[in-house]
Amino acid sequence: MTWRMMAALVLSLAIALATGPWLIRKLKKLHFGTVIYELGPAHQQKQGTPVMGGLMIALGLAVCQAVLHPWPGAGFWDLGLGLMLVSFLSMAVGFADDWIKAVKKRHEGLTPWQKIAGQVVVAVGFTLWCYFHPQIGSRILIPFIGTEWDLGIWYLPVMALLVIFYVNSTNLQDGLDGLLGTITTVSSGSWAVIVLLAVFAQGADPAHLAPAGIFAVSLMGGCVGYLRYNRYPAKVFMGDTGSMLIGGATVGLAMVLRQPLLLVLIGICPIASSVSVILQRYYFKLTRKFGKDHQGKRLFRMSPVHHHFEKIGYSETQIVSMYAGVTAVAGMIAVLSVLGG
Amino acid sequence: MTWRMMAALVLSLAIALATGPWLIRKLKKLHFGTVIYELGPAHQQKQGTPVMGGLMIALGLAVCQAVLHPWPGAGFWDLGLGLMLVSFLSMAVGFADDWIKAVKKRHEGLTPWQKIAGQVVVAVGFTLWCYFHPQIGSRILIPFIGTEWDLGIWYLPVMALLVIFYVNSTNLQDGLDGLLGTITTVSSGSWAVIVLLAVFAQGADPAHLAPAGIFAVSLMGGCVGYLRYNRYPAKVFMGDTGSMLIGGATVGLAMVLRQPLLLVLIGICPIASSVSVILQRYYFKLTRKFGKDHQGKRLFRMSPVHHHFEKIGYSETQIVSMYAGVTAVAGMIAVLSVLGG
Repeated sequence: MTWRMMAALVLSLAIALATGPWLIRKLKKLHFGTVIYELGPAHQQKQGTPVMGGLMIALGLAVCQAVLHPWPGAGFWDLGLGLMLVSFLSMAVGFADDWIKAVKKRHEGLTPWQKIAGQVVVAVGFTLWCYFHPQIGSRILIPFIGTEWDLGIWYLPVMALLVIFYVNSTNLQDGLDGLLGTITTVSSGSWAVIVLLAVFAQGADPAHLAPAGIFAVSLMGGCVGYLRYNRYPAKVFMGDTGSMLIGGATVGLAMVLRQPLLLVLIGICPIASSVSVILQRYYFKLTRKFGKDHQGKRLFRMSPVHHHFEKIGYSETQIVSMYAGVTAVAGMIAVLSVLGG
Repeated sequence: MTWRMMAALVLSLAIALATGPWLIRKLKKLHFGTVIYELGPAHQQKQGTPVMGGLMIALGLAVCQAVLHPWPGAGFWDLGLGLMLVSFLSMAVGFADDWIKAVKKRHEGLTPWQKIAGQVVVAVGFTLWCYFHPQIGSRILIPFIGTEWDLGIWYLPVMALLVIFYVNSTNLQDGLDGLLGTITTVSSGSWAVIVLLAVFAQGADPAHLAPAGIFAVSLMGGCVGYLRYNRYPAKVFMGDTGSMLIGGATVGLAMVLRQPLLLVLIGICPIASSVSVILQRYYFKLTRKFGKDHQGKRLFRMSPVHHHFEKIGYSETQIVSMYAGVTAVAGMIAVLSVLGG
């Protein structure tokens, strides 16, 4: 299992590095450039940067599972299958969005309802798969105290909502050069270590968990390779294609490892992005309704909160470094928490 | 042990964040500003940035060992004691260097011979301590194949040279805003995971290894906090104080865990810095002696190699991100390698 994981890490990195220049040329030729939202911070110079760079990460994930998965797997209940489905189907929604934006040359891609409909299908499908999976089921682990909690039938609505929430969170997080790629390098590294601890310290079945370990390190390797082309100043963006792939992949790892609660730590930055957007909206509505002069006020200069940090004077690279540090500390606490007290 | 490590991670982070502004003011008042080397790349705007910022990391390391160490420890053979000695005595050499530079306002601090003499004393002392330590000794572990190799009496010269080599490597590595701090966040995270695997997967004695685990995460937390003030554009530099502290701490962790060979992976970037300096020098000498026109040629535009990357057009933040990615991948391979095949 460890050899397969090493090979997956190096292979996915090599795939992203090798296919990057070709993919960027291809995307430019197809005119799949970003259309920068007029209301955003001063990022006009990014107009025309090709999107869908997330495809180089996706390719690594697919090739690593195909080549390095310990065949024969567990068939329908193989974790590799479940993880590939939730991540690639999430990606498909983002891909459709990017595609329409690119073809129609307008900021809006799919309508909100189309997007959410696609996400609901993926989320419900994957949650059902986990619920009926003989080694996953409705009992989630409680980190820190090391016990289990049986959500019963509540597993289905709660986890389906979590998938939708988290995929949209990573989508919101992807707003600065190198940001989501860097965070995901750290977070997928944390998941890989959690898989290792489950197998080597807690006696989980390696045949069951190996596909998840391979998946986590391929995500990590893919992100490191992708960052070669995405770090500031970015030559390519991952697009909704990439951010939804990463969202599906990360929430998928959390669920197959029965550690969805750890997303609060490992996914702290994407979650903060979502929460800042929600807070901003409700604060505005509340102050408009109940404020002294009935003028809506803003909690952040702009949401998601990484744009707030930009507006108050931090550079893109400073914000990326800060978010990476927060994710690294939270990820290490998560790793420690699975071992209990 | 895991609770202590969590507390150490958060405490060292908090200490660096909290003492940073105070320390920077203090250092400025004492005129401990950098004197930029005239031959370096165009970093003149960095003139006057205070050095010795590494003290905020050192403080976290000391407080965490004092407060969170599981007392009573193993006395003279306590890993916490060994790690504190090798890192703080290495730091003392760097501190003397920084101090003299600051007071005399010239680029050269200690003379090369003074520096090397100090380092030899630290290296030999710590190597002897490891050699006679009942749980360390002269047998080092071989990663990947999971066996031991008894160096016998050769342990002493080889490891003493390793300490000197590695401390100077991190010193050379520290040349761009955020570079060594970011790399060390990743590398100390890897060491922390290796401690966890040793205890929870390989049955090592937690009473023996807990101080090393606490030490590794305090180094990580300290670096994340320090980066708050050091990331581009830097408000403070760690100085030789910080880089030699980090060098001693990292090589110390490798040796007490009996995994010095893993430095080739986890310390790949500092080692590349040293090697690039050596190659540059010998290539120049050889081409001058044996080249067609007896003019010395350069292999890199400038060494250490991170300045070469600057000269060929990469920005500081791009180089930091690249080095961090390389260290993350190498660190994950190191983590996997300790579990064998």
